[in-house]
Amino acid sequence: MKPLSASEAVKAIEAGTLTSERLVQACLDRIAERDPVVKAWVHLDRDLALKQARAADAAKGGVLRGVPIGVKDIIDTHDMPTGHNSPIFAGKVPFGDAACVALSRSANAVILGKTVTTEFANRHPGPTTNPHNAAHTPGGSSSGSAAAVADGHVPLAFGTQTGGSVIRPAAYCGVIGYKPTFGDFSRVGIKMQCHSVDTLGLMARTLDDIALFRGAVLALPPVPIARDGAAPRVGFCRTPIWDEAEPDTKALLERVATKLGAKDVAFAPEFKDILDDHGAITGWESLRNYADERLRNPGKISAELMAILKKSDGITFERYVAAQRKSVAFKAHVDALFDTVDVLLCPSAPGEAPKGQEFTGNPRFNSIWTLAGTPCVTLPIGTGDQGLPLGIQLVGLRHADDKLLSTAHWVLSHA
Amino acid sequence: MKPLSASEAVKAIEAGTLTSERLVQACLDRIAERDPVVKAWVHLDRDLALKQARAADAAKGGVLRGVPIGVKDIIDTHDMPTGHNSPIFAGKVPFGDAACVALSRSANAVILGKTVTTEFANRHPGPTTNPHNAAHTPGGSSSGSAAAVADGHVPLAFGTQTGGSVIRPAAYCGVIGYKPTFGDFSRVGIKMQCHSVDTLGLMARTLDDIALFRGAVLALPPVPIARDGAAPRVGFCRTPIWDEAEPDTKALLERVATKLGAKDVAFAPEFKDILDDHGAITGWESLRNYADERLRNPGKISAELMAILKKSDGITFERYVAAQRKSVAFKAHVDALFDTVDVLLCPSAPGEAPKGQEFTGNPRFNSIWTLAGTPCVTLPIGTGDQGLPLGIQLVGLRHADDKLLSTAHWVLSHA
Repeated sequence: MKPLSASEAVKAIEAGTLTSERLVQACLDRIAERDPVVKAWVHLDRDLALKQARAADAAKGGVLRGVPIGVKDIIDTHDMPTGHNSPIFAGKVPFGDAACVALSRSANAVILGKTVTTEFANRHPGPTTNPHNAAHTPGGSSSGSAAAVADGHVPLAFGTQTGGSVIRPAAYCGVIGYKPTFGDFSRVGIKMQCHSVDTLGLMARTLDDIALFRGAVLALPPVPIARDGAAPRVGFCRTPIWDEAEPDTKALLERVATKLGAKDVAFAPEFKDILDDHGAITGWESLRNYADERLRNPGKISAELMAILKKSDGITFERYVAAQRKSVAFKAHVDALFDTVDVLLCPSAPGEAPKGQEFTGNPRFNSIWTLAGTPCVTLPIGTGDQGLPLGIQLVGLRHADDKLLSTAHWVLSHA
Repeated sequence: MKPLSASEAVKAIEAGTLTSERLVQACLDRIAERDPVVKAWVHLDRDLALKQARAADAAKGGVLRGVPIGVKDIIDTHDMPTGHNSPIFAGKVPFGDAACVALSRSANAVILGKTVTTEFANRHPGPTTNPHNAAHTPGGSSSGSAAAVADGHVPLAFGTQTGGSVIRPAAYCGVIGYKPTFGDFSRVGIKMQCHSVDTLGLMARTLDDIALFRGAVLALPPVPIARDGAAPRVGFCRTPIWDEAEPDTKALLERVATKLGAKDVAFAPEFKDILDDHGAITGWESLRNYADERLRNPGKISAELMAILKKSDGITFERYVAAQRKSVAFKAHVDALFDTVDVLLCPSAPGEAPKGQEFTGNPRFNSIWTLAGTPCVTLPIGTGDQGLPLGIQLVGLRHADDKLLSTAHWVLSHA
């Protein structure tokens, strides 16, 4: 049986043909069957999940009425450990819930468990495999959330993105990933890596589910996906790093762009190295944001992260400030691109999920937009040369997330 | 004996004429004598402070070489409780240090203890009194930090500002308060109220100390205050709320502006209500950022904060987004004001510290600049009609904090 989407589950629960308890039990069964291979979950307490489900059934109501969600393990939960895939935090239970978790509970969601993250949502991988082919990475850093949603363990999950940690794993696993406009979602209770770019994001298998989940996290009534929209004006933005895309991804994007009648859109020349600015900002900030971990527990940080932090130590304050100023100009530049288009089309990742678990993939097609603060969504469209999912990334104007999601629906129906 | 500044103490310790242990003991003695009235400290562990001091003496070196600092009690410390002036967090010891605390320790500072904050750095006050007159408020939310520095308990302390929580209490207590350019200081481990504006700030009794402390928090060599600068071009910015200033403050500002040969600088008319936008952003964000506290522990939140959150529930998402867009335009507008001036002069607060402990004072002369993201410093200059300190606020161009501090030195020598 195809697993239900969150929207379908809410409808069935409201209609009385399903209960949260049965839905959660089905998810737990699926996890029991599949997680020995997929390894998406780092913490799962079946009894606690079922207890929450029974409470949700009793409470009735709520935007997420008894639907289970997965929570990336850098996001605090008061009743489950939050380990950050680091021995520093192993087994530690936070004092409270992250705001996004609290708001989800308030919408009557069931917090099913914690999903595998790379170490501190940085590069050092966890054990999760790609559900389409266990020999490949699911991407990172929101590895477990992407794999769990893709493999039908849970209809919804939280991810976070500093470079490409929501959109890329979602694309690699063939699900929908959504990064909202910077600042819209609360980051309270989420381990901070780089305050200028860190963004909470959502994963689901349908756009309707993204819209539903988004409403819960904003503590607002969900805005349904518009289905009566006219054809959007699509800008095909190859970005300055088009050459990093693999042939199958290039071919997919060219084909979709043609089909959508997209016009070419390019950044002004002064932004051709904008990824260097993303690197300067994230490097400078993360070195300081991890001060407690690296100063008190250097022996418990992976060699991979230590090397990244060491490299960051070479970034001067002047370079950081220049990058911050450039990012302000870049945001304004990107905003202005939307004067003549409704949405930008670009790759979600260079190609399919790389082989092996060590390298979670190249985030650069995402980092551009994380710096821009724009809303982004990746849509699964077809497969690549190795039979793994490929995605296309749609980018919207800041603060026009509803429109982006509705446009994405149009694109998905016409691409 | 006049208490030593941090810079003086570092020099004396380096010269071997003072030890951290003796300095810390002197601070503890001062606190023992004065804190029954001032009530600046919520957590003080004398043995732990002296142990840190002896370790600092043994370690030698470091930018803050054995100097004790006060830490506002919404900032995490791994070896002391962080209570947020809330029963929800009373006695709870965080898993780690906030980045600013870790970086201070790395600069060989002694974390003396935790200073009183209003509840969650919002409005509900703590017990601290103004060291100049215990019948008056020290201001808030960084009440204990301002009072402790003013009363010679400690040369340096951390505050945070969402509205006016660093500059205002510093002005009320007659010390120097500094709010850096938004984003420069890490906020990891600091309770988040409003992610778009929350800013870590510093308090000290001298500008040299601010520059020293700033270096430690940035993990960079401190940039000394320039003493050879030319006369700055001063803009006198009464702000759109000049009428909220009291007569003594107005008179002080007019006198200083005249003495400095300041020219009048005003906001463009479209920003006359910019404080409404600050209110929309902070209200919308704080309601969501406090989701865990208000949903799981509503009975442990003060009636004052509950009323503020309830009022915030009336702010629509559209209003929030409009305010975010306006704030981007406002930042650009304020940046442009510095095309013709080096610094803006404006009130630090409407007047002297109000009588009583219930109302921590009007933050509006600060909230403008918290939203603008500009660096700000308040300088104690004279007293008001009730004999309490008055301050002047100097505002600099974003990312030009060094210049602001050097300009402040010039102003302090010439005003």
